[in-house]
Amino acid sequence: MSLDLTWVDPPFDIVRVAHVELTVTDLAASRAFYVDVLGLVPTAETDDALYLRGYEERLHHSLVLRRGPQPLLDHIAYRVRRPEDLDGVADAYRALGCDVARVEGVELGQGPAIRLHDPLGFPLEFFHEMDQAECLLQRYDVYRGARITRADHVNVYVPDAAAGYELYRGLGFRCSEYIADDRDDTPLAVWLYRKATVHDIALTTGAGPRLHHYAFTTAETASITGLCDILAGMHRERVIERGPGRHGVSNAFFVYLRDPDGHRIELYTGDYYTGDPDHRPLRWSASDARRRTFWGHHVPDSWYEEGTPVRAPGGGPAPLVAPTADERLVTVE
Amino acid sequence: MSLDLTWVDPPFDIVRVAHVELTVTDLAASRAFYVDVLGLVPTAETDDALYLRGYEERLHHSLVLRRGPQPLLDHIAYRVRRPEDLDGVADAYRALGCDVARVEGVELGQGPAIRLHDPLGFPLEFFHEMDQAECLLQRYDVYRGARITRADHVNVYVPDAAAGYELYRGLGFRCSEYIADDRDDTPLAVWLYRKATVHDIALTTGAGPRLHHYAFTTAETASITGLCDILAGMHRERVIERGPGRHGVSNAFFVYLRDPDGHRIELYTGDYYTGDPDHRPLRWSASDARRRTFWGHHVPDSWYEEGTPVRAPGGGPAPLVAPTADERLVTVE
Amino acid sequence: MSLDLTWVDPPFDIVRVAHVELTVTDLAASRAFYVDVLGLVPTAETDDALYLRGYEERLHHSLVLRRGPQPLLDHIAYRVRRPEDLDGVADAYRALGCDVARVEGVELGQGPAIRLHDPLGFPLEFFHEMDQAECLLQRYDVYRGARITRADHVNVYVPDAAAGYELYRGLGFRCSEYIADDRDDTPLAVWLYRKATVHDIALTTGAGPRLHHYAFTTAETASITGLCDILAGMHRERVIERGPGRHGVSNAFFVYLRDPDGHRIELYTGDYYTGDPDHRPLRWSASDARRRTFWGHHVPDSWYEEGTPVRAPGGGPAPLVAPTADERLVTVE
Amino acid sequence: MSLDLTWVDPPFDIVRVAHVELTVTDLAASRAFYVDVLGLVPTAETDDALYLRGYEERLHHSLVLRRGPQPLLDHIAYRVRRPEDLDGVADAYRALGCDVARVEGVELGQGPAIRLHDPLGFPLEFFHEMDQAECLLQRYDVYRGARITRADHVNVYVPDAAAGYELYRGLGFRCSEYIADDRDDTPLAVWLYRKATVHDIALTTGAGPRLHHYAFTTAETASITGLCDILAGMHRERVIERGPGRHGVSNAFFVYLRDPDGHRIELYTGDYYTGDPDHRPLRWSASDARRRTFWGHHVPDSWYEEGTPVRAPGGGPAPLVAPTADERLVTVE
Repeated sequence: MSLDLTWVDPPFDIVRVAHVELTVTDLAASRAFYVDVLGLVPTAETDDALYLRGYEERLHHSLVLRRGPQPLLDHIAYRVRRPEDLDGVADAYRALGCDVARVEGVELGQGPAIRLHDPLGFPLEFFHEMDQAECLLQRYDVYRGARITRADHVNVYVPDAAAGYELYRGLGFRCSEYIADDRDDTPLAVWLYRKATVHDIALTTGAGPRLHHYAFTTAETASITGLCDILAGMHRERVIERGPGRHGVSNAFFVYLRDPDGHRIELYTGDYYTGDPDHRPLRWSASDARRRTFWGHHVPDSWYEEGTPVRAPGGGPAPLVAPTADERLVTVE
Repeated sequence: MSLDLTWVDPPFDIVRVAHVELTVTDLAASRAFYVDVLGLVPTAETDDALYLRGYEERLHHSLVLRRGPQPLLDHIAYRVRRPEDLDGVADAYRALGCDVARVEGVELGQGPAIRLHDPLGFPLEFFHEMDQAECLLQRYDVYRGARITRADHVNVYVPDAAAGYELYRGLGFRCSEYIADDRDDTPLAVWLYRKATVHDIALTTGAGPRLHHYAFTTAETASITGLCDILAGMHRERVIERGPGRHGVSNAFFVYLRDPDGHRIELYTGDYYTGDPDHRPLRWSASDARRRTFWGHHVPDSWYEEGTPVRAPGGGPAPLVAPTADERLVTVE
Repeated sequence: MSLDLTWVDPPFDIVRVAHVELTVTDLAASRAFYVDVLGLVPTAETDDALYLRGYEERLHHSLVLRRGPQPLLDHIAYRVRRPEDLDGVADAYRALGCDVARVEGVELGQGPAIRLHDPLGFPLEFFHEMDQAECLLQRYDVYRGARITRADHVNVYVPDAAAGYELYRGLGFRCSEYIADDRDDTPLAVWLYRKATVHDIALTTGAGPRLHHYAFTTAETASITGLCDILAGMHRERVIERGPGRHGVSNAFFVYLRDPDGHRIELYTGDYYTGDPDHRPLRWSASDARRRTFWGHHVPDSWYEEGTPVRAPGGGPAPLVAPTADERLVTVE
Repeated sequence: MSLDLTWVDPPFDIVRVAHVELTVTDLAASRAFYVDVLGLVPTAETDDALYLRGYEERLHHSLVLRRGPQPLLDHIAYRVRRPEDLDGVADAYRALGCDVARVEGVELGQGPAIRLHDPLGFPLEFFHEMDQAECLLQRYDVYRGARITRADHVNVYVPDAAAGYELYRGLGFRCSEYIADDRDDTPLAVWLYRKATVHDIALTTGAGPRLHHYAFTTAETASITGLCDILAGMHRERVIERGPGRHGVSNAFFVYLRDPDGHRIELYTGDYYTGDPDHRPLRWSASDARRRTFWGHHVPDSWYEEGTPVRAPGGGPAPLVAPTADERLVTVE
């Protein structure tokens, strides 16, 4: 049951995870949270959607919020290096039995894209072209809230982390760290990267397909504790679900928040460079209390159990498959 | 049951809480914790005792660790402004029915002192004179561990916070903040100061007399999260009992640690100035989830229940009196 | 020429320096600087004046800006512990040959006060009573700019630091640190305190009487570097005159800014406790490159030469007396 | 004279700059500086050389210090993605007229490498294989000094930045930022990257070939100000040449130090992601006072003038070519 850690180099180049689109039920409430509290920058707004980015970002958006009847993950979007990589990616998914659609003009500021549901049930988008927006990295006079610099990664629930890992490995993703059950080395969570950081996507064992969280980076840990102070100053401390603290896996400083629809957002800073060709995965035992929070803190059950349903091919939430393991059961805390 | 918040000016001047002496069972293990991990500076060491101070401190010691058969609080020491204040303090405690002894030469570096057990059962010491030690505040090249600058306060369990408050009010202590039961305004915890900070001593409702914790300050919050990283790097993360986080009461950033004998140590930074003559106490409702940790975090039961017994007049631990209330029972979290 | 470092206890109690009033030529420009950039909180505004405070402060104001024909220091205000201390202070200044006036209702929110020009030529105010304003310490959601917590100290140019020191010593001020010429121990700068910090007022040798700067504290050094980032983000980096850096004297982290009228403002954090009865002054040699900036940085000439004229008894700027020494001439950098 | 900002994709893949070797005259003094003060980790030590790395690094070394008769840059080393890339790189340099030598066993822990002097006169090394060392990223208990995480970049003096840029562009390097003379758009300094950060190498106009500096990253800005405090605590503040401060170019927080031989070391943190395929260079005017230090600080002449000679093909320092421009002459500060 151990992971095959050899690397695969497919004939296309996925640069990184680039954005997600979340369905929200009250766009004004979401705007108040993401813009007024977190401080994300609106690039564009329409009647039913909000396109947001961080202060460092130059692409049109790294988060789309769109009004809908229930909270959903509409899709996860990856950027490819060259326009022709879209064809390579489409071929790869078709070979896996997936239907692949070409879309254009659906998202503001974005060029041609492909969309599909992957074998795990996740709605995905791949694109190359997107409009540039003004980089505000040094406009410290407009920084607000969590002082978010850029999007970093997604984390998703999959029923079987080993199976999810194999799918992503075939697409050229590499493993930076994983948590395993010491009895049989079963992977319980896996961190996978394309850009030279700890991850673009992490797989968490749980009822899936669901989004576990979407993560943004800040430049300093003080921006993360500072956002907690801001939330408490507003008496909205219940938004804080877990942390702040330092992760064992990834070494990053973090906090997890829940938005008005329950979508989970992570603020994250301080992981490390993974771009060397012989970069080796780190293995954590599920029984090391430091793996999730380096300081040994208990992880609340909600963090292991709750998540955002994903849009099914026909609309509405995709049905869930029960997980094959529970990280908490093999943990001594 | 509300607190009488008028101030009393007795005919003596207690400057601040200045040190505690803790009985420890394994002096080498305690040295490893306080000197090697926390980074306190040893001013003097004898066969059975260790005299420690922070980098900013100029007095000989702010913590004495002395070997003994079981973990105890040997005494809490307050400094008085003038030598003659010792007589004034002695008179005040005698008027309360306490026996007061004069001691000299018991602690290295310290001049004449008085010792007594107060009406709450706590072993106290008052002194004026102490040798000066080298101030290492700007010797950043020798800073280690938690980068502790100075001692700040003690926190003790008393069965009845209102009664404890009245005792300290009579000695000239003033209230900066308190937590009260909304039903009848019963105080559940009280913060009291002489120096112009939030407290020299805090009273926590619980089985007493016991020491709840002794607290040191650091210059920056990063020293507190950094000490957590150091502990986890050593795989000693279990030393961390609560936090790090920001307090509601006091506004300080904090973490609570447990030493090898279970004595609780707080690292604390970022409270505020209380020295103005019309400084008014802040009241917190026991049902405000932010009062203990501003970010709304749950406080572990051990933090409300465990503590260090105090030395009884005849030696050994003083018997405990059951508390009159339980802050947790009037709290909605 | 050495300082007499023994302490004097006069029959009145000055608590601390509490505010200054600055005359400004363009109130809207000053508001933009102090409120919009620095983030001070306006307690009250009139046609010709702005009353400001920091987030921690509970008194009505710690800075008054009032429109006038030229930039001046209108007065420095000290708070006394008891109402009757105003009489004691008045007597002391009259004994020095000063005229003392009683004023009331001149400043919003303030009770009866006395005003005078001291023997050094500085316009001073003493008061006891002031209205309370809302403490915003934990309203992190409204923090802006430099995240200023409270006023800390004034620094003034005097022609002869030794003479200035003697005046303040007689009022009960104590010396925390001083810079001296190694050849004859002449003091070139002196730091004096009433509250238990490094200073309420510092004396800088230079043409006087003039205000050198007024200082506010922040809770963290990051607020000071962050304000520099904000200024540069606005392309107003020329506002930064010196620093950021760490002081040798006081150990505080600092930056010096120049407001639209050229008044110098310091942001300051991280000095130390001075409240013990045997607290001893630190002496710095003028030839130690670390005394002004601990990291050895060169201090610009403007910082040694420029300052704010003070209001003369008859209005307009007070004439200047040439200094008796120049710290820069005895310095090897 | 403007830069050609189109990208070139050569048939080999340089991953990043990976280490430099510096010749030092007193290895014990260098060890005291790099290990005891800066806190770099020694992986291996021989009679005449010291192999160092940062806490995050997994390769055997990112800095070699080797004893020699005079301070020199022995070589700059780049890592290539695949073993066969060494041949591709060798071919490219031979086509430029350079002699390329194959070496093995010269550096501890390193596999086969090629060495050459490039057309600008710089001694370079390219390698693929290197032993792994223990990653100490989460061993916070052993962190010391500047808490250096990893090597980041080199900066070199070249007489003509445009010519240097063209050479590196041909090797697949991309430009992230540059400083230009507004009169004719002449580039005065250029930042070039292979890994997805602001640079692996920067070109500074000056008498060359010389090394301007070698830079290491820290995780937090506080590690950089903290190292300044440590140096001042040791009264070695003269080691600090420029900063700390924030860069305009790169946005990073920085300080420049001079080692016992005068080699310049930068501590650097907080630049940004450059890995997207359409990442566009930022242009700074040489007359913007913020370009070098965002806060507008003056840059000392030593920083523009002094540097480390490079080893000539026959040993000893390479002769210098005078620069074609001087950034300071086109600057208004």
